[in-house]
Amino acid sequence: MTSKTQTNGATRVALLGFGTVGQAVTRILCSGEIPHVTLTHIFNRNLARKRADWVPASVTWTESVDDILNSDVSVIIELVGGLRPTYDWVKTAIERGKSVVTANKQLMAHYGIELIDLARQHGKEVRFEASVAGGIPVLRALQDGLAGDRLVEVRGILNGTCAYILSRMQTDNMPFADALADAQRLGYAEADPSEDVDGADAAAKLAIIAAVGLRRPVRVADIATRSIRPIEPVDFLYARELGCTIRQIARASAEDDGMVFAAVRPALVPLASAFGRIEGSQNIVTVRGIFGGETSFSGFGAGGSPTAVAVVSDVISVASHQGSAPANGTATTFHKVNGEFVAPHYVRFIVNDKPGIIAQVTAAYARYGINIEGVLQLPKFRRDRLPFVITLEECPESVLDRALAEIAKSDYHVQPPLSLPIFS
Amino acid sequence: MTSKTQTNGATRVALLGFGTVGQAVTRILCSGEIPHVTLTHIFNRNLARKRADWVPASVTWTESVDDILNSDVSVIIELVGGLRPTYDWVKTAIERGKSVVTANKQLMAHYGIELIDLARQHGKEVRFEASVAGGIPVLRALQDGLAGDRLVEVRGILNGTCAYILSRMQTDNMPFADALADAQRLGYAEADPSEDVDGADAAAKLAIIAAVGLRRPVRVADIATRSIRPIEPVDFLYARELGCTIRQIARASAEDDGMVFAAVRPALVPLASAFGRIEGSQNIVTVRGIFGGETSFSGFGAGGSPTAVAVVSDVISVASHQGSAPANGTATTFHKVNGEFVAPHYVRFIVNDKPGIIAQVTAAYARYGINIEGVLQLPKFRRDRLPFVITLEECPESVLDRALAEIAKSDYHVQPPLSLPIFS
Repeated sequence: MTSKTQTNGATRVALLGFGTVGQAVTRILCSGEIPHVTLTHIFNRNLARKRADWVPASVTWTESVDDILNSDVSVIIELVGGLRPTYDWVKTAIERGKSVVTANKQLMAHYGIELIDLARQHGKEVRFEASVAGGIPVLRALQDGLAGDRLVEVRGILNGTCAYILSRMQTDNMPFADALADAQRLGYAEADPSEDVDGADAAAKLAIIAAVGLRRPVRVADIATRSIRPIEPVDFLYARELGCTIRQIARASAEDDGMVFAAVRPALVPLASAFGRIEGSQNIVTVRGIFGGETSFSGFGAGGSPTAVAVVSDVISVASHQGSAPANGTATTFHKVNGEFVAPHYVRFIVNDKPGIIAQVTAAYARYGINIEGVLQLPKFRRDRLPFVITLEECPESVLDRALAEIAKSDYHVQPPLSLPIFS
Repeated sequence: MTSKTQTNGATRVALLGFGTVGQAVTRILCSGEIPHVTLTHIFNRNLARKRADWVPASVTWTESVDDILNSDVSVIIELVGGLRPTYDWVKTAIERGKSVVTANKQLMAHYGIELIDLARQHGKEVRFEASVAGGIPVLRALQDGLAGDRLVEVRGILNGTCAYILSRMQTDNMPFADALADAQRLGYAEADPSEDVDGADAAAKLAIIAAVGLRRPVRVADIATRSIRPIEPVDFLYARELGCTIRQIARASAEDDGMVFAAVRPALVPLASAFGRIEGSQNIVTVRGIFGGETSFSGFGAGGSPTAVAVVSDVISVASHQGSAPANGTATTFHKVNGEFVAPHYVRFIVNDKPGIIAQVTAAYARYGINIEGVLQLPKFRRDRLPFVITLEECPESVLDRALAEIAKSDYHVQPPLSLPIFS
């Protein structure tokens, strides 16, 4: 089929959004490296500021999305982001017989199934490799390369901002606020970092991976998230005592009862593990199948260029008709989500020290049937801001939360206890 | 197109070779997990011994390959291995309008381009994901997922037997012969391990990856290989002093002059690097593109099940017409190969010690214009079997080899010097 497409001449492509990724996509499409694909239109608001002279004169610039939707292009690349008005633009594009390639994780996490079904009805495609892990072709791998397996679990470090902040805190013994400020200065974090550090970004990516990999779509809103903001340098100190570091982990698994376990939160991971060694803006995704065991994919998830490569690869796939709708395309129902980690836990307290605190805490755990695995208290801390850690054997997070709510009522806490699951 | 295929009913598939992988493929195809694909025939010699009662009665067993070639199946899975008569069977199958899925690295490394062209002429496909890295869908990733980049380098640990032997030597301070014996006992190595430990297996895989990823096919015979046999436990001791370990590395890069660098040999890699941490039967492939930078894929390369998953994934791809010929399919010329590593080197000597040896060796290096980076001599070794190491700044391997040939003439060597490139 490739040769057929090629003899029919180049595929005409339009670009929505000339930001960092859009510019990188344009450079690749205009590099001469990509035959049979021609960029004909670029849409962006405020062209007076955006127009770039290195773009071939043959490309039509426009501030009107209708110029694109009314054009004869067969593929639209959507890099504007957000849900509105992007959703309406993509829907209209499909209804007018255009395939869509997007890096918009929120759009695909919220409306992916609907848009994929709509595209199938029109014999078109929606492709979204770039929406998940930048330069790592993980959706392609899950959907096609591992099609012969049934995947039951996906685990990932999917947010480069958190990976950067947490590795800075780990290596430079730096408070969260300072690491965040550095990330913002270097362009790794937004002015408002909430979507990254509080987990919404990773949750959207996890929803897409669960739909494609586990073939069980879930609502993003159902994915429990916890922020990395409460983590302090002392937590890396104690984590190291346990042979671990701290990363934001996104995890989803297909449960036998048809439910999906899905959650995003900071967790302890072994320093020696692949997850513990992920740094800077790297991403990693590990999947487990019932036949093939574990497979890992890692690479640079952030940055314009790796994401642009994913976008262009999808465009080539659509242009050569290699692509097909994701394996989950026919699944139109959302699966129920269970967000509770049953795992060993790390709980860090910072107290104004006085006799009997550990006795009180351990007694409270006992009342909730939670078994203590160990107690850690490093020397040389101020007694009025004394950090110590209690590690717990496997227990449901909800039970632990109730125990901690009771423990937190005592007057000796300088700040609320912090609990993190420990992943082996 | 998927739905169309599905309404047309199941794709009929025949299996050649009911060994470990063939049995794993059969289990997956008969598991009920794979709709729209039906296994109808199994060919194997000596069925009296091979026939398995857990295979559905609907499957026809045969000892005659003609029964398969004359059948109405549309896909043939070739798991017999070897070049003859497999090549003739696959060619005939394609000429009779059947697509072929194979795990046969030697077949694809030697005849891949010819068979892919033949398949295209007949509107059929040859797919061979399982021929390279078992459970890691790396060919799919290179060919489709990174199609938007131009890949210029691939590096990999592609042979599970060497990975196992070298990690056993590293962790248990074990001689090569003992680690090999263990690998053979555990089924990780053949009775004749030459193809694995001397590099032919990795060279065949590298040839396939270079053709698909770099789009520059090379002849397997042109890929320089060196054996891991000369490596001794003491080399891991010295490597650790340099923060490194030793692995069999397969590496290919596209040179600006149109040539391809391609070689397979043991090398020093940093302990902290992804390559240094690969153990047991794991594989890793790292690719570098001009746009997207580095991407890594790792997983379990050996074993029946991961390989079977790759085979079945290819069958599903062919059955649903998702697949297309590899990106290199149109390249019919072989590229020239340069097998010379220009790299810093580790050279280990074992000598019957006497005064002036290091002076002689360093003088010889000087005559060949090779700069010495450092000299390492650990204490507590017998003076009549004294190992020491000289590390060299970047130099062409051919120059180093000439220098070592001269140095080796001296009478104080207990065994020939061993040189290994150092990869950072």
